Amino acid sequence: MTTEYQDLSIPERVLLGPGPSNIPPSVSNAMSQNMLGHLDPVFLTIMEEVQEMLRSVFMTENRFTIPISGTGSAGMESALVNTIEKGDHVLICVNGVFGTRMCDIVERCGGILKRIDAEWGKPIDTDFVRQTLEDFPARIVAIVHAETSTGVLQPLEEISQIVHERGALFIVDAVTSLAGTELKIDDWDVDVCYSGTQKCLSCPPGLAPVTFSQRAIEKLRERKGSVQSWYLDMTMLEKYWGPERVYHHTAPISMIYALRESLRLVLEEGLQARWERHRKYHNELVSGLEKLGLSMLVEEKYRTPMLNSVIIPETADDVSVRQQLLKEYNIEVGSGLGPLKGKIWRIGLMGHSCTRENVEVVLHALKNLL
Amino acid sequence: MTTEYQDLSIPERVLLGPGPSNIPPSVSNAMSQNMLGHLDPVFLTIMEEVQEMLRSVFMTENRFTIPISGTGSAGMESALVNTIEKGDHVLICVNGVFGTRMCDIVERCGGILKRIDAEWGKPIDTDFVRQTLEDFPARIVAIVHAETSTGVLQPLEEISQIVHERGALFIVDAVTSLAGTELKIDDWDVDVCYSGTQKCLSCPPGLAPVTFSQRAIEKLRERKGSVQSWYLDMTMLEKYWGPERVYHHTAPISMIYALRESLRLVLEEGLQARWERHRKYHNELVSGLEKLGLSMLVEEKYRTPMLNSVIIPETADDVSVRQQLLKEYNIEVGSGLGPLKGKIWRIGLMGHSCTRENVEVVLHALKNLL
Repeated sequence: MTTEYQDLSIPERVLLGPGPSNIPPSVSNAMSQNMLGHLDPVFLTIMEEVQEMLRSVFMTENRFTIPISGTGSAGMESALVNTIEKGDHVLICVNGVFGTRMCDIVERCGGILKRIDAEWGKPIDTDFVRQTLEDFPARIVAIVHAETSTGVLQPLEEISQIVHERGALFIVDAVTSLAGTELKIDDWDVDVCYSGTQKCLSCPPGLAPVTFSQRAIEKLRERKGSVQSWYLDMTMLEKYWGPERVYHHTAPISMIYALRESLRLVLEEGLQARWERHRKYHNELVSGLEKLGLSMLVEEKYRTPMLNSVIIPETADDVSVRQQLLKEYNIEVGSGLGPLKGKIWRIGLMGHSCTRENVEVVLHALKNLL
Repeated sequence: MTTEYQDLSIPERVLLGPGPSNIPPSVSNAMSQNMLGHLDPVFLTIMEEVQEMLRSVFMTENRFTIPISGTGSAGMESALVNTIEKGDHVLICVNGVFGTRMCDIVERCGGILKRIDAEWGKPIDTDFVRQTLEDFPARIVAIVHAETSTGVLQPLEEISQIVHERGALFIVDAVTSLAGTELKIDDWDVDVCYSGTQKCLSCPPGLAPVTFSQRAIEKLRERKGSVQSWYLDMTMLEKYWGPERVYHHTAPISMIYALRESLRLVLEEGLQARWERHRKYHNELVSGLEKLGLSMLVEEKYRTPMLNSVIIPETADDVSVRQQLLKEYNIEVGSGLGPLKGKIWRIGLMGHSCTRENVEVVLHALKNLL
């Protein structure tokens, strides 16, 4: 091998896409602290702190609340693969990429899948869920809280009630919503929730916080067969994260340091204040976009504050605008996915990236480019 | 939440356990560089460099060589879950924890498992593999190169030949061996190999380098059903890591920066030189341990250089010696696992931790404590 590789030199981007968001300096610093063994008493204390803080951020008392050693998608897979047994009836609500992905995983788990769809950019209709559950004996119902592919924020409380009246488990994808908008696992009676670190937590991607209610744990205990994934098997993971500390796999130590610091920052700011910050700059962004003559994909009351999908005007070229944003302004925004490809830009205001300065910077750049 | 969390303050350990090993400063620095989007052109170049460097370190031309977004155990699962279809005959060689774990995963994949065992601390007998394959129509044979639970280094070349004469795929666990001892994927005709970042690469835990041969890719293409794990599905991952760049999951950006730098350091040192360094300090450690009157678990010719399993003398208390090493000397060594619990200590000399100074430090400490 004769190629010479240079030292890394990474430009300073303003990350206003669908995630990752920018990382606060103290999170980077935490991540590069001294390495520890995964059973070191100092690390075990850090694990406990991370669990405590995750419970606070998820607003839950669930004992079983941990970061999975993979990205948000591993969190999704862990939620489904642990709860679904072959032959279980599973209802998935689909109005974007991530609902679609859940359907794919359900089939890989041998679940009997029923999906209900809403148009991409619209929320799932609560009555439709109610009606569907009258005929379909779901043991599990899953839905996305903040659809990163569309910018739709899904109301959850009424659906949760309907799901539980039918005796099913309620699984919520909060990859993009956690720490950026109201999410109350216990108050809303969510059984399994998973998230990612690179959105409103502003920690690098690589971990997936998950929380399992007692009801979900009971379903897990009643399984007839093993969980099909060894790596994501909660019956084993709980023995490493619980008092037994039974070795399962080597925890991603540095990433856990980073997560601890990002959670600490969330709690220092306060959940309520953080939600309000996201809502405030979202409002400022939308109002600025509208002043530029642009319109939003999603109806006002269903917009996620941290992910803003704006319709690309007919006069603009999707790719070249995004390339100019990146090259000339060092700003990343996201493209549309699936049926929305070429039709929307996705402007993220997540965690540390959610500031007035960034709102102004992206509005200024768009004004120049359009 | 009123608890106050302190800033992280992590002691500086000498990590001489079964991994993680100590991290070179430039790897920590790389890890904390600016965040990038996972489709940023700068990041795409980094991905290509990582793939190139991984190929060099694995000594392979395999196009499909990537880091999986999980720890070494996710690498193991990805190797098995992608190649095994329900009903496939799979032979697993077991002489420690990691062979045992493979058996567990094979059963979760619906494979028809046959295992052959060697005593923990001894290598797998090549003739036994040959004989077993006469009656057992294996499509896949898997074995551990460096058993981290025992310190046995398994000769692979002859077994590889036998496996291929039978038309089976040959899977090798190189979690602990990669970049610490001779490992030649192409020359030895290994079809699937996986590793971890936290051993001889001296990168934080969290990624699993894997490589798939053309033969393995063909087996994957011929599958009748989907890979049971969405997250680890190579048919999808290859579209993100290949020229199509189809979004699958958000890559763990910071960890990839760290891996890039750790691979760069490996290639800068040179593979051969690195293997020799591991062998040299292994020899010095063993000779020092023997001078202290201690003996090694494994016969000389089968010892892994990077993981030294030493028999605990009857006069010493396993737990209290390890606790004193940690508390008084800031040295981590590993305990025995399974049948070797309480019988051996596992002293790692991996990557950045593999230095003369560390050999002297641990010998000095043991001399004082025993």
